[in-house]
Amino acid sequence: MFNSFNICPVTVSFSVNLTDRSRVALDITLLALSTGGYEEHSPGRGMNGAGGPTAMMDPLEDPVPGVGTYEDFNTIDWVREKSKDRDRHREITSKSKESMGALLHRISDAFSGWLLMLLVGLMSGALAGGIDISAHWLTDMKEGVCLNGFWFNHEHCCWTSNEPTFKERDKCPDWKSWAELIVGTGEGGFAYVVNYMMFMFWALLFSFLAVTLVKSFAPYACGSGIPEIKTILSGFIIRGYLGKWTLIVKTITLVLAVSSGLSLGKEGPLVHVACCCANILCHLFTKYRKNEAKRREVLSAAAAVGVSVAFGAPIGGVLFSLEEVSYYFPLKTLWRSFFAALVAAFTLRSINPFGNSRLVLFYVEFHAPWHLLELGPFILLGIFGGLWGALFIRANIAWCRRRKTTLLGHYPIVEVLVVAGVTALVSFPNSYTRMSGAELIKELFNDCSLLDSSQLCRYNAGNGLADRPADSGLYTALWQLSLALLFKMGITVVTFGMKVPSGLFIPSMAVGAIAGRLLGVGMEQLAYYNHDWAIFRGWCTPGADCITPGLYAMVGAAACLGGVTRMTVSLVVIMFELTGGLEYIVPLMAATMTSKWVADAFGREGIYEAHIRLNGYPFLEPKEEFEHKSLAVDVMRPRRADPALAVLTQEGMTVEEAEALVASTRYSGFPVVVSQESQRLVGFVLRRDLLISIDNARQRQEGVVSSSQVLFTEHPPAQAADAPPPVRLRSLLDLSPFTVADHTPMDITVDIFRKLGLRQCLVTHNGRLLGIITKKDILKHMAQMANRDPDSILFN
Amino acid sequence: MFNSFNICPVTVSFSVNLTDRSRVALDITLLALSTGGYEEHSPGRGMNGAGGPTAMMDPLEDPVPGVGTYEDFNTIDWVREKSKDRDRHREITSKSKESMGALLHRISDAFSGWLLMLLVGLMSGALAGGIDISAHWLTDMKEGVCLNGFWFNHEHCCWTSNEPTFKERDKCPDWKSWAELIVGTGEGGFAYVVNYMMFMFWALLFSFLAVTLVKSFAPYACGSGIPEIKTILSGFIIRGYLGKWTLIVKTITLVLAVSSGLSLGKEGPLVHVACCCANILCHLFTKYRKNEAKRREVLSAAAAVGVSVAFGAPIGGVLFSLEEVSYYFPLKTLWRSFFAALVAAFTLRSINPFGNSRLVLFYVEFHAPWHLLELGPFILLGIFGGLWGALFIRANIAWCRRRKTTLLGHYPIVEVLVVAGVTALVSFPNSYTRMSGAELIKELFNDCSLLDSSQLCRYNAGNGLADRPADSGLYTALWQLSLALLFKMGITVVTFGMKVPSGLFIPSMAVGAIAGRLLGVGMEQLAYYNHDWAIFRGWCTPGADCITPGLYAMVGAAACLGGVTRMTVSLVVIMFELTGGLEYIVPLMAATMTSKWVADAFGREGIYEAHIRLNGYPFLEPKEEFEHKSLAVDVMRPRRADPALAVLTQEGMTVEEAEALVASTRYSGFPVVVSQESQRLVGFVLRRDLLISIDNARQRQEGVVSSSQVLFTEHPPAQAADAPPPVRLRSLLDLSPFTVADHTPMDITVDIFRKLGLRQCLVTHNGRLLGIITKKDILKHMAQMANRDPDSILFN
Repeated sequence: MFNSFNICPVTVSFSVNLTDRSRVALDITLLALSTGGYEEHSPGRGMNGAGGPTAMMDPLEDPVPGVGTYEDFNTIDWVREKSKDRDRHREITSKSKESMGALLHRISDAFSGWLLMLLVGLMSGALAGGIDISAHWLTDMKEGVCLNGFWFNHEHCCWTSNEPTFKERDKCPDWKSWAELIVGTGEGGFAYVVNYMMFMFWALLFSFLAVTLVKSFAPYACGSGIPEIKTILSGFIIRGYLGKWTLIVKTITLVLAVSSGLSLGKEGPLVHVACCCANILCHLFTKYRKNEAKRREVLSAAAAVGVSVAFGAPIGGVLFSLEEVSYYFPLKTLWRSFFAALVAAFTLRSINPFGNSRLVLFYVEFHAPWHLLELGPFILLGIFGGLWGALFIRANIAWCRRRKTTLLGHYPIVEVLVVAGVTALVSFPNSYTRMSGAELIKELFNDCSLLDSSQLCRYNAGNGLADRPADSGLYTALWQLSLALLFKMGITVVTFGMKVPSGLFIPSMAVGAIAGRLLGVGMEQLAYYNHDWAIFRGWCTPGADCITPGLYAMVGAAACLGGVTRMTVSLVVIMFELTGGLEYIVPLMAATMTSKWVADAFGREGIYEAHIRLNGYPFLEPKEEFEHKSLAVDVMRPRRADPALAVLTQEGMTVEEAEALVASTRYSGFPVVVSQESQRLVGFVLRRDLLISIDNARQRQEGVVSSSQVLFTEHPPAQAADAPPPVRLRSLLDLSPFTVADHTPMDITVDIFRKLGLRQCLVTHNGRLLGIITKKDILKHMAQMANRDPDSILFN
Repeated sequence: MFNSFNICPVTVSFSVNLTDRSRVALDITLLALSTGGYEEHSPGRGMNGAGGPTAMMDPLEDPVPGVGTYEDFNTIDWVREKSKDRDRHREITSKSKESMGALLHRISDAFSGWLLMLLVGLMSGALAGGIDISAHWLTDMKEGVCLNGFWFNHEHCCWTSNEPTFKERDKCPDWKSWAELIVGTGEGGFAYVVNYMMFMFWALLFSFLAVTLVKSFAPYACGSGIPEIKTILSGFIIRGYLGKWTLIVKTITLVLAVSSGLSLGKEGPLVHVACCCANILCHLFTKYRKNEAKRREVLSAAAAVGVSVAFGAPIGGVLFSLEEVSYYFPLKTLWRSFFAALVAAFTLRSINPFGNSRLVLFYVEFHAPWHLLELGPFILLGIFGGLWGALFIRANIAWCRRRKTTLLGHYPIVEVLVVAGVTALVSFPNSYTRMSGAELIKELFNDCSLLDSSQLCRYNAGNGLADRPADSGLYTALWQLSLALLFKMGITVVTFGMKVPSGLFIPSMAVGAIAGRLLGVGMEQLAYYNHDWAIFRGWCTPGADCITPGLYAMVGAAACLGGVTRMTVSLVVIMFELTGGLEYIVPLMAATMTSKWVADAFGREGIYEAHIRLNGYPFLEPKEEFEHKSLAVDVMRPRRADPALAVLTQEGMTVEEAEALVASTRYSGFPVVVSQESQRLVGFVLRRDLLISIDNARQRQEGVVSSSQVLFTEHPPAQAADAPPPVRLRSLLDLSPFTVADHTPMDITVDIFRKLGLRQCLVTHNGRLLGIITKKDILKHMAQMANRDPDSILFN
């Protein structure tokens, strides 16, 4: 069974769809469903195994349990969900005038959203704090151990030694490298080898633990999770993806994966963790537990929380959720997201045990302003970022596709161990790859101050300010950085998408920061040796500071991250919240816009959209314009050559006939018409609701037999006295199904689907029902138009 | 005719609507239309007198000129506009494969949006810079004149005198107060009286000029403009509102109004100015000139630009546009807005002649962090802000309604002169009201440093840090501040809505800042005298700085502004971009959320929505939920008792009959059905298009007479040989009119209208056409449900 564990995010090839009549074999290889045991999947439950029939009857609940819920891997109907919530709200409001208790209920209901946000913020902040501390500790564990207590990390261990610079703090007496512990000395070749071996040992151990935990307990915990969360937020159901097991396993394995030294970050997974928290906390409130649309509002806010705790950037987080992740983002969610993001950032800051103000992660203070002419190199960095983004996406998708289709996918543990081994092997000798991604970025963003002992600040005129001739130490550093750049570029491609939690932000930023720093130092030396050139004359007098390599690193990081994810505004805001550099918005913006334009020229998809397409999720990209001239009639089913649409009539059909119709098709819903001749539409009924209700009627309603009539009319027609009692199903009927005329251009239809969040839409011609368009039909049509394989869309 | 100039923003009572059959007298009192001369209103033009028939025939243009355009004071159809733009885009794309020129056209078309943004940013930034400089100069002119050149303001005049503090810089030899010039001495009672008189003289002169210019040349230039821009962005047409005359007059009168010392700010009007720039620049690009929906995307970005230049807050501006102003804000607009806002802020900063980095307007640097317990007073400030906001809105709306309904509205010049006179009279003696709003806020936000000579920093232990016992100087200042608070609160209510450009941001912030500073000083003294209290013991040791009154002022300012406008996230972001205080997000957020909740308890409308409702604009508030249980059938026209809906049939009607139908009703559009019996819907045709096309056919098409058939079918039916040639109008037909079923709940219908930006929607029952719902019907229904006067909605 474990062999089937071969596609990262969701291992299902699901071919049941609304309109394909050809019976395709159900090829359910989803481990999550088949191994069972750690996620409940009782029928009638919500997205994450909750919200099912409860013992206490809620007066607002549907009379027949299960009616109005969704199956796994199906799309929700936003309109219906929101309408349900408004009904709920109306009920509470009208009742609140009756009694004091009902009034209190109304008030608590109104504030439950804010309370939930508070809880999400607190829980995510606390978890992120825990992850930070543990990852820091385990990362340092690869190099040595603290004698005061093995649970201290290097920095904490050396807390008492008050040396301010990096080099000297390294040498505090309480902290022992593995060589010092094992061989007794930290110097010499043998000690180096021992340290090397221990480094590799821990890296392999951590990565082995991570992949094994993911594989055995929660396959959904792998990857960054953002593609799936985007899909879920657009109205898709993946049960268990945001469940408690995923949360627990993802939290633990994230720490392990980060500590193992793999080229991955914790930012994407933190978004997933925050969404899991939000989803679990939703179960505390009926309002959110029972309504898929309301729950998605909370999840949108949770995505903001995730970025907020990852970078200490609450505003950037909200914009990230708005720009990149969310599908439906009303203003109410904006306020709540901001509140939750603030609470989370505040929580994280409060529990941070190291005393440094964590709200600004890579605080920079450059002492020279930037010059307008520097926009040239910044735009160059933008071009580099765009090219790298486009290349990375292609390479990574090709590699992931290979993993899906070849034997490679069958051995996830071996894959992770090999990659972790290679990473550890190559990165240990080079100090810039040995340090963690976040540390590397901090080092590269750093402006050289007088006291700085970093190798990157070795200028000839002492350990001094920049704009001096470079020392040989600096040249060595540049050489190491170039190697680190090449290595990071290669290894990140194969790392992202492996079966461990893995984020892309830090590796992408690291690549950009290295490139930027290299360019920055290059520019600086150019200006130093040629300050009489026309372009430098205006602002670079000898001895004065004019070029800040740290700023170039910052701009490069933004450019590369922008190329990979295609974020713009949120990225700039995150960058300046990350660095505190409000004045550098223009350089950052110039680079990210260039990067986006360049990368878009090679393909408009960001890495998350590419992964969504790779996995065949039914995601209607809100950014992409539908450009073709087709009409609704070209996309709807049945096609011209097909038999007519299967419809129910509002009266005159027996239970048997209805069941036969349902059994003979795989549609997930049926239009109800006045009569077969007129084809005038009355309403729409869902397959699931119909089957549940007929079953229910057969069991509970006396006298219902196969020849009973199925009635969708308001008033029962006259029947023969001896006829069996009819099954009245008008309450199931959606009396306001969406319809479009057959001549409606598809661009308008796509707009309607996107903006209203429809699941299906009926097509009429001069008032007669003609066919049906589902979200999947639209996605297939779009794939066809773009010359892609329409069968790549797997789910409903 | 000038008597009709009695309602501020748009003086029209327009009673032509789609479904009211009762002929209501057209009571067009719009000065803008009737005085004429400064705005072109040729038929068939776009929102602002442009976009009409041009000499060069565009291949994409409609064959009959005028078809597809809108009348003044009408709502646009977003779906149709966007569909038109997609058609245009498709055409260009498909042509681009043919020739090099077409390819270049495609590329220039793709980048025209960015180019336009660049131009909008540059122009708005430059204008804002000009306004800043002029207002600064004229404001100082009220107090004195520079001998070096009358065109220097006080600060610029004393540029050479290098004294750093405020007091001493006041006394530079080149700057002469009016008393010094006229009487020869600046000291003594007589000099004071002379200065007082001159101050009043200039204030009255400036305000007289401002109101006269507005009244004579551009009535649309009055007020803040934000309510109208919100309405325009939601898809309404007000011709000339964003035209060149409005721009010119608003720019000049804004300078005058601000300089006159009235209690108003320039922030709202700057948004209007930026939107005018954007609208005028749109004429350079066919893509935007001819498409109302595309133009609104640009205007959304321009709103962001306005706030960006007003406060030097590009991110805050974008969020302001998103949260407060815009109706349709796709991601593309987000990026472009940000770009334009950055360009504008950068332009403004570059032309700023005073050399101070203008990107942070009220830069603060508090040297003490805030304590968690201080959230108590911050929340108190939030409550104050909320109460003040609610009170202000009620009082201001009551006053504006009084102005509309009584004689007061007939004498706008007198009103402005009286208010300006009273303001000048009262504000001269009190130094806190005499200074401009922005200066006052700066003074109040200020943290007391050692060198500070401000009266607010007079503590007993020297001119020292805070947390000292207050001096009598400080007590005087507090007393003056309290008077200033009361005065500002009163005068702002009557000032906002007068016939001069007037913004609300600065006055609201000033009120809050005064209240905050008072509370801050109070807390500080409390802590000083009671530092052994339990609550202070933790963080207030004697002699240490623990409470920063400037921070209280900042929080108070945010709270009051939040109460008035109900902004949250954008407000917090603006505040921290304004002050550079990234660490004070939590206090700001706590205060703004409290303020919003408190104010919402008294009424959910912000000041802008209240003014929209006061003016009867057809604005479908996106924030307000529709809470009632009505169905589409309850809202549609015709009502049950009314005669059936007027429809055209797709064949069989003569030109005469069609014209009679059009003449007998005031509908702005007609459904076309298969036949009167079946009532099966074929499409929808607009009144305007129909009339224009029939006229066109009568004039140009040979043989068309009154008995010619009007045909909407694709293929002409067989006709008698001697019958006159038919008028074929299928091309006018919208073949995909939106329909909803009669049982559709109104909450869903309202959602559809909002999200898709519909103008009307047809209602069907089982496939038969039943009625029609327009945006106005919905607004009337909502007004009815809220027990308001449904006739307050004036426009279509």
